[in-house]
Amino acid sequence: MTEQTEKQRAKKKQIIAAAIRCFVEKGFHATSTAEICKAAGMSPGNLFHYYPTKNAIIEAIALQDQADFATLLQLEQVTDSTIETVITIMTRLIQLYNEPTYARLSLEIIAEASRNPAINNTFIKNEKIVRQRLVDILRHGVSNGQIDPELSIENTASWLMTIADGAIGRDLMEPEFHLADRLGSFIYIIKKILMPIK
Amino acid sequence: MTEQTEKQRAKKKQIIAAAIRCFVEKGFHATSTAEICKAAGMSPGNLFHYYPTKNAIIEAIALQDQADFATLLQLEQVTDSTIETVITIMTRLIQLYNEPTYARLSLEIIAEASRNPAINNTFIKNEKIVRQRLVDILRHGVSNGQIDPELSIENTASWLMTIADGAIGRDLMEPEFHLADRLGSFIYIIKKILMPIK
Repeated sequence: MTEQTEKQRAKKKQIIAAAIRCFVEKGFHATSTAEICKAAGMSPGNLFHYYPTKNAIIEAIALQDQADFATLLQLEQVTDSTIETVITIMTRLIQLYNEPTYARLSLEIIAEASRNPAINNTFIKNEKIVRQRLVDILRHGVSNGQIDPELSIENTASWLMTIADGAIGRDLMEPEFHLADRLGSFIYIIKKILMPIK
Repeated sequence: MTEQTEKQRAKKKQIIAAAIRCFVEKGFHATSTAEICKAAGMSPGNLFHYYPTKNAIIEAIALQDQADFATLLQLEQVTDSTIETVITIMTRLIQLYNEPTYARLSLEIIAEASRNPAINNTFIKNEKIVRQRLVDILRHGVSNGQIDPELSIENTASWLMTIADGAIGRDLMEPEFHLADRLGSFIYIIKKILMPIK
């Protein structure tokens, strides 16, 4: 029984990996299920057994994304500094968003989401999880005096998410962008945004 | 002669408008030149006379974008405050990026640019024009003491562009995002980033 589940999980992983390769290369819209079958080395019947539609595959990718976000929001080292906590989350987010495959897939999905409400809803949900976490942390920081009380919490969380989203595939727009060189400035800017004005 | 040129210009405008409608609705990749012809009410021969390829149309859209940026960077009211100047440019940029058609077309083009270097290069050029303008203004602001000298000019300009790019079609990711309600917070954040620490 467990072995069977292992096998199924492996099959699903194989399909998702193949689909991601196809979507990155050709685009979500331009990829057919036949192409995903070919890339996964699987028959259409077999693929259909796991994912009946291309949308079901995108849904699975979004759930994987949700799991990635959950890991990213798990802070092993709880620090007393609210600002440091925000910086850790933002840095992890931006690092994830700069992984080439993740970035290209995200751009593809965002473009598709603008036309496809089902895809859009799943990604809205994921974005909301991270934003709500930022809201909670910022609120805590205002209450303990570490965060500028003049900031609107909800709006600030939203602009922080805007910065992160803008970093998706940044090097496409700016080939000289290397995250490692820019991270120091990023942290400095986030600190300035959040600190109380003395 | 002038009338002929007027006519040509009108035809081109008609093609670009039709192409934008198609790209927004179906995606750049999924739109055929036949569909653009149909949307523009034009024969393939006629379309071909103005734009021999789909890439030529995207190039024309990018040039239009360059013209939009030029207008956006033209500041009629020169102010003595460097920070106000940056805020004016950033606000205009974000307002443009939140126009629904502009946003959807941009998302489409960014996704396509990740696979198509010709498209990418044109948009890199446009992004660079705005970023360079921000660099010049920030540098001026540091020299006149209005901008935090601890900021890395190049990196800050790059993060400002990141915020703007993240605002493209923001309401897709966050349906409760209404730019008008968020603009006050945005301006407050930009001010905090740029001001010298006292």
